[in-house]
Amino acid sequence: MFRNTMPRYEILSPDAIAVLDKGWRRIVTEIGVQFARQEAVELFRTAGQRTDGDVVFFDPEFILEQVKKAPREFDVQARNPANSVHIGGDQMVFSAVYGCPFIREGEVRRDATLDDFRRLCMLSQSFGQLDSAGGVICEPNDAPLDSRHLDMIYALATLTDKIYMGNVVSGPNAADTIRMTEILFGNGQGADRGRASIEQTPATISLINCNSPLRWDDRMLDAQFEYCAANQAVVLTPFLLMGAMSPVSIPAAIVQQLAEALTGIALAQLIRPGCPVIFGSFLSNIDMQSGSPSFGTPESAIGLLITGQLARHFGLPFRTGGGLNASQTADAQAAYEALMTLLPTFLAGTNFVMHAAGWLEGGLVSCYEKFIIDVELLRMLRVEFTPLEIDEESLAFGAHQEVGHGGHFLGAAHTMERFRDCFYRPLLSSTANYERWVRLGAKDATARATEICAKTLAQYQPPPLDDAIRAELDDFVARRRTELGD
Amino acid sequence: MFRNTMPRYEILSPDAIAVLDKGWRRIVTEIGVQFARQEAVELFRTAGQRTDGDVVFFDPEFILEQVKKAPREFDVQARNPANSVHIGGDQMVFSAVYGCPFIREGEVRRDATLDDFRRLCMLSQSFGQLDSAGGVICEPNDAPLDSRHLDMIYALATLTDKIYMGNVVSGPNAADTIRMTEILFGNGQGADRGRASIEQTPATISLINCNSPLRWDDRMLDAQFEYCAANQAVVLTPFLLMGAMSPVSIPAAIVQQLAEALTGIALAQLIRPGCPVIFGSFLSNIDMQSGSPSFGTPESAIGLLITGQLARHFGLPFRTGGGLNASQTADAQAAYEALMTLLPTFLAGTNFVMHAAGWLEGGLVSCYEKFIIDVELLRMLRVEFTPLEIDEESLAFGAHQEVGHGGHFLGAAHTMERFRDCFYRPLLSSTANYERWVRLGAKDATARATEICAKTLAQYQPPPLDDAIRAELDDFVARRRTELGD
Repeated sequence: MFRNTMPRYEILSPDAIAVLDKGWRRIVTEIGVQFARQEAVELFRTAGQRTDGDVVFFDPEFILEQVKKAPREFDVQARNPANSVHIGGDQMVFSAVYGCPFIREGEVRRDATLDDFRRLCMLSQSFGQLDSAGGVICEPNDAPLDSRHLDMIYALATLTDKIYMGNVVSGPNAADTIRMTEILFGNGQGADRGRASIEQTPATISLINCNSPLRWDDRMLDAQFEYCAANQAVVLTPFLLMGAMSPVSIPAAIVQQLAEALTGIALAQLIRPGCPVIFGSFLSNIDMQSGSPSFGTPESAIGLLITGQLARHFGLPFRTGGGLNASQTADAQAAYEALMTLLPTFLAGTNFVMHAAGWLEGGLVSCYEKFIIDVELLRMLRVEFTPLEIDEESLAFGAHQEVGHGGHFLGAAHTMERFRDCFYRPLLSSTANYERWVRLGAKDATARATEICAKTLAQYQPPPLDDAIRAELDDFVARRRTELGD
Repeated sequence: MFRNTMPRYEILSPDAIAVLDKGWRRIVTEIGVQFARQEAVELFRTAGQRTDGDVVFFDPEFILEQVKKAPREFDVQARNPANSVHIGGDQMVFSAVYGCPFIREGEVRRDATLDDFRRLCMLSQSFGQLDSAGGVICEPNDAPLDSRHLDMIYALATLTDKIYMGNVVSGPNAADTIRMTEILFGNGQGADRGRASIEQTPATISLINCNSPLRWDDRMLDAQFEYCAANQAVVLTPFLLMGAMSPVSIPAAIVQQLAEALTGIALAQLIRPGCPVIFGSFLSNIDMQSGSPSFGTPESAIGLLITGQLARHFGLPFRTGGGLNASQTADAQAAYEALMTLLPTFLAGTNFVMHAAGWLEGGLVSCYEKFIIDVELLRMLRVEFTPLEIDEESLAFGAHQEVGHGGHFLGAAHTMERFRDCFYRPLLSSTANYERWVRLGAKDATARATEICAKTLAQYQPPPLDDAIRAELDDFVARRRTELGD
């Protein structure tokens, strides 16, 4: 796990925070938020909030009371305890791309399959920079729709021993995720023991998106009710592309994001007080010329920095950022847009980072090469955001005495003692001189990423899994698949 | 000109600054700095510093007294007053890549020529993101060596009307730069009037590199004496690739950088008290596996942030950063390494940014496509580092009232009023959907950059220049070329 103890880059003045604070209060009070599930509206009504149909009008202070019940920090356990994570504080947790129907592999773009899903799980398992493969690392279009979630959770649970994200397509899918997680954490002694374990310490994080503006949809809410009741963490995430789901002004998008995320969090705390939540943000904008989503924009970076500062203001762990970009291929644009998002992600000290590896083409595509590029970015940023030791010894005065004026340090004792690990060592980047680079085939970074990807998959070792647990999972999947008619 | 009024990202504690401050003092006191020009040693000796051959041992307080004579901020005039710049404070001034012997244009890598030099000047003139084409934007290898500087200054002075950097190969080359600049600023009334004008307000910035470690070379010093005597700005720049020119520890490199830059600045103030200087930094590291220079590394980003903080500590305008990278082609690596340098360049509030466009392959190559990529990065970062207006109106409450729950803002009145300029509009990045992108030829960012470059050059308009001044420049170049034997 990575702890980011570097300073946070904060750009909001207290005055600006006050304006934004007033803004979300006005929205929840005057416009209200729609909850397309009766139980949600009922919970708010019973707690004293005014409702009109499925719209809830809030007292902002009530929301803040609920928000206060959420833990500032919490653990999420992995089946390999070495891969358990802590959400909040200085910790940064990274998971791979999520939700893509398509795959890009080299020059080929095609529908994603279950085989891709498995291979992307294997990649996520292989790189320590990722704490999780995430959830829908790609959409396995060749698996039957009704039982696809079983295949995905099974792959995440068996091909990786890291934390994973639950399915949110429906309440029953969420329930299946929880059952399979109970089996996995039952230690071979049954799902009951597993239930106790994951209620004690959550084992999944699930993504609950708002149907922005200001509407929480029924299926997402169904999933949220399941997860929160089982004390599983949820990321309440306004899904904002400014110009489409929010006004074309960053402050307006930010106050909308606050209104949405905070009401979603309030609901979580009504379902189960104290249940773990993450303040979510997914904030970019529409390209007003093409009408397509833009990513890695200046606007999204500014929104990201503001989101971090506000989440800290409300005492909540937060999710934002990732390797976002709109590029159609793993080219220079994909790289600079990804870093234009990922570097602010670190500057903001983001606690949970989805889409940290593999995102391409506005999230329509999981790309193998982009996955490797992003892992390189994560490796670099982890070093960049590790505080430097500055003390007398670090000044290496003896090296200066040894080398003197106009000499070089290549053979100095200080260098010889440290040359193996004094600097960042790249995974993907090449510093080969031009002649050597040509001899090696004149491969650009994307071509080299293809090779690294293939090599990593060839060296993949499945993490050990107790036979009894695997059999129990197999049984559950087979039974549920039959029940679901696939 | 761009003013960066966003917060600075500072990572040094007061304790760390104290350690670093002690470090450079010890170096200049105990190891001293070598000056390979007798007049420099003599100036220091006369001013009371201990010398031994060409090594000067300093009283650190003496250095600080000299440094205090340097202006904290100053203007540099361009022949088009609209392009004059201010160095220091919140201002950021950008110049193109400098010093490359080779060119990459599409798939071709070859020796740079004078035609490349001119075309790169034309590109620099065309993009408002660049305040200067710089100086040696590429090395025109087909021009005679002895008089090449005349061709370069002539191109910079005539094809652009922005500020430019002087030649530093020798004292006579510097003198030629100054003479040509006097002609350019003589307003058709002769070089004397020009001399008065540029002595009043400098018109050039020249790069004086230290032959690190701890040695200032004779030819660079010859140039520095010429420029400082004429009140032309110089950037005193330690050239540090950690592992070769400095120890393999960032703090050690930083104190060396301080010792070198501050002694160079002290010399400038002895030559002409009050002459304009810039604290320079060029700090990266050797890849200890390949032995080649690395760029865009975490270490260079950390060094960059520290440099900014220390320059402010000493009250000096500073130069660092740029679009540095080690990549052999304008690929994903070139893009992410460039941004890994350029984003910290903005976070540090760098006053003068060399290599801001076109740098490839560790600075061996000026690349047309990379030039366009970098211009896109500069455009994005200028927006990202422009403070957001956050007030009641920016919250667009009316748009929420209009759109309500689950709707969209595409046709909202607030959007219609602002859609033209509400978001960053890219130069190079594409948000086209996949089908459209394929129809357009499936061009990656680099291929699109080739097209943008060609279009920009086709649309280039030379800035107007008084015929008398041009004739005077022509005469000077012809006369000097003959004198130099070419």
